[in-house]
Amino acid sequence: MIPTRSAPDVLRRARELTTPGILAAAGRLSPEVRPLVEYHLGLADQHGRPIEGASSGKGVRPALVLLSAEAAGAEAVIGVPGAVAVELVHNFSLIHDDVIDCDTERRHRPTVWAIWGVGRAIIAGDALLSLSQEVLLGSGTGAEAARCLAEATSAMIAGQALDMAFESLAGVDVARCLSMEAGKTGALLGCAASLGAILAGAPQRVTDALREFGTQLGLAFQAIDDLLGIWGDPRQTGKPTWSDLRQHKKSLPITAALAAEDRRSDELATLLASDELKEHDLARAATLVEQCGGRAAATDEAEGRLAAALDALESAPLERRARDELVDVARFVTARDC
Amino acid sequence: MIPTRSAPDVLRRARELTTPGILAAAGRLSPEVRPLVEYHLGLADQHGRPIEGASSGKGVRPALVLLSAEAAGAEAVIGVPGAVAVELVHNFSLIHDDVIDCDTERRHRPTVWAIWGVGRAIIAGDALLSLSQEVLLGSGTGAEAARCLAEATSAMIAGQALDMAFESLAGVDVARCLSMEAGKTGALLGCAASLGAILAGAPQRVTDALREFGTQLGLAFQAIDDLLGIWGDPRQTGKPTWSDLRQHKKSLPITAALAAEDRRSDELATLLASDELKEHDLARAATLVEQCGGRAAATDEAEGRLAAALDALESAPLERRARDELVDVARFVTARDC
Repeated sequence: MIPTRSAPDVLRRARELTTPGILAAAGRLSPEVRPLVEYHLGLADQHGRPIEGASSGKGVRPALVLLSAEAAGAEAVIGVPGAVAVELVHNFSLIHDDVIDCDTERRHRPTVWAIWGVGRAIIAGDALLSLSQEVLLGSGTGAEAARCLAEATSAMIAGQALDMAFESLAGVDVARCLSMEAGKTGALLGCAASLGAILAGAPQRVTDALREFGTQLGLAFQAIDDLLGIWGDPRQTGKPTWSDLRQHKKSLPITAALAAEDRRSDELATLLASDELKEHDLARAATLVEQCGGRAAATDEAEGRLAAALDALESAPLERRARDELVDVARFVTARDC
Repeated sequence: MIPTRSAPDVLRRARELTTPGILAAAGRLSPEVRPLVEYHLGLADQHGRPIEGASSGKGVRPALVLLSAEAAGAEAVIGVPGAVAVELVHNFSLIHDDVIDCDTERRHRPTVWAIWGVGRAIIAGDALLSLSQEVLLGSGTGAEAARCLAEATSAMIAGQALDMAFESLAGVDVARCLSMEAGKTGALLGCAASLGAILAGAPQRVTDALREFGTQLGLAFQAIDDLLGIWGDPRQTGKPTWSDLRQHKKSLPITAALAAEDRRSDELATLLASDELKEHDLARAATLVEQCGGRAAATDEAEGRLAAALDALESAPLERRARDELVDVARFVTARDC
């Protein structure tokens, strides 16, 4: 039996298999859009010069797609159009998110709109979203894979709309926060984790189990992201300290802390209701979130969702090696400092 | 034999058949996005109150989809998911265009971003684009129709990117302008005019002829839009006088006038190179475009493209009544005052 590969190796292989497809897809974009996309993906600098040996992102989503093809007993390569398409959707959302949140930096580089302006960034995101469907449908695959991607994309956009609405909304409870995060992060990861199997023509029982795995993993991933959004090291995250508090996000630690029956929870609510939070307000708010149990709640959530993700893999017959690698990748990507 | 219906009747029937599907599709949107979309579509006011008897737009694109199903010998109703999807894509592009062009009014009403802000308008457009694929793929249709729509959407976005780039570019010639307009307007109309036939399972010869018809009609339509963009009556168009000149658009009359070998053409180029055009500059520029033959060139283009569209309908065997109605609709929508 072939031994399992380490998670970093699995991610590296996914990047290697997917990057040529991403480059080819970007090559179909018009010359007005392509440089913005290649820059955003980390494949070129802002003057259009290729970055040698570059690959877009960490490769988590592509790795899930390829492993899901293997988990269904197919070759990884059958998942490549899906891996490319999912990565394009993910990056469409990042480009538009940066415009919407007025973020001027991502991964320690200026964002697309900060360089090329809002209008061109909108168009670049639109082009990526449309391209994602073109890539998937153009690969000769059937409508089912494209439907999975379209539904996940719509759910992701709905989650983003809710996330944005929460910023100016008081009284968001944990259940609504989790429902928003299931859309914002869970939907596309659920799609990624089942798309390879769909492309491989796997039975519904298999694709359902894999989708559930991805959705739960997405929720674990997002809980950790929420922890990093308050207590993450700016040098690591590339975001300012207490970033989510600054933006009035209603993330998991914050909604959990606000739900605590505690005087400090009332103090937190009053603080967050203020339009202009100063540095000492933010420090105080972060302390209050922790004292009200928000940090512990998000940590528990991350662990519980990871366990649920791993359980889902037991609910259908999967090719063993790919299943073990999915477990390793899930553990690896949720083991971030926070 | 059943007599042909008049073009206004054909358009009315298309709106009647498509509006329920559009309402149902909008109903799938999240509560944060839906009111913006229903407002934009003219189905509700900005407080979410339904507008009685409303239907989105003139129904040109839906009419083309339904007639193309009939032209292929099928029932019109088989084209409805395609008609809904094309209308959603068209409206996605309008919502984003208004953000990009900073237009505060459309159809004599405030634009979505002018009411709800840029961030929410971006999300609303994204949601419509993704929804369009969901509607088409969810209707049980195959991948070919979805591929046609995705390719047309990508071509449209590329055309919009080029249109935007032209605003700050001198030396745009007529050929480049036409290539931009083929993407911006021709691609989606070409898709609309063939999508019903694709859904009906028509042979390629039929779908190719219908797509060519739609593409050429789109170019005729755009040439007229370009004329209205300079000489249109603001009360009719809902845009300011000399709108395209204000925005430094490189539309067909303008690129044709700039190509004239004439001293007045040089004067026009100098005028348009100025960042801030005053009212008397705009009046002078409009006069120069006309004197340099730009108005006549766009009028000729509209006529030539309409003729090419009608010719395309002769290149394949089509159901006769639907073909005659396509001819009438093409004549009707290109007979606008300009």
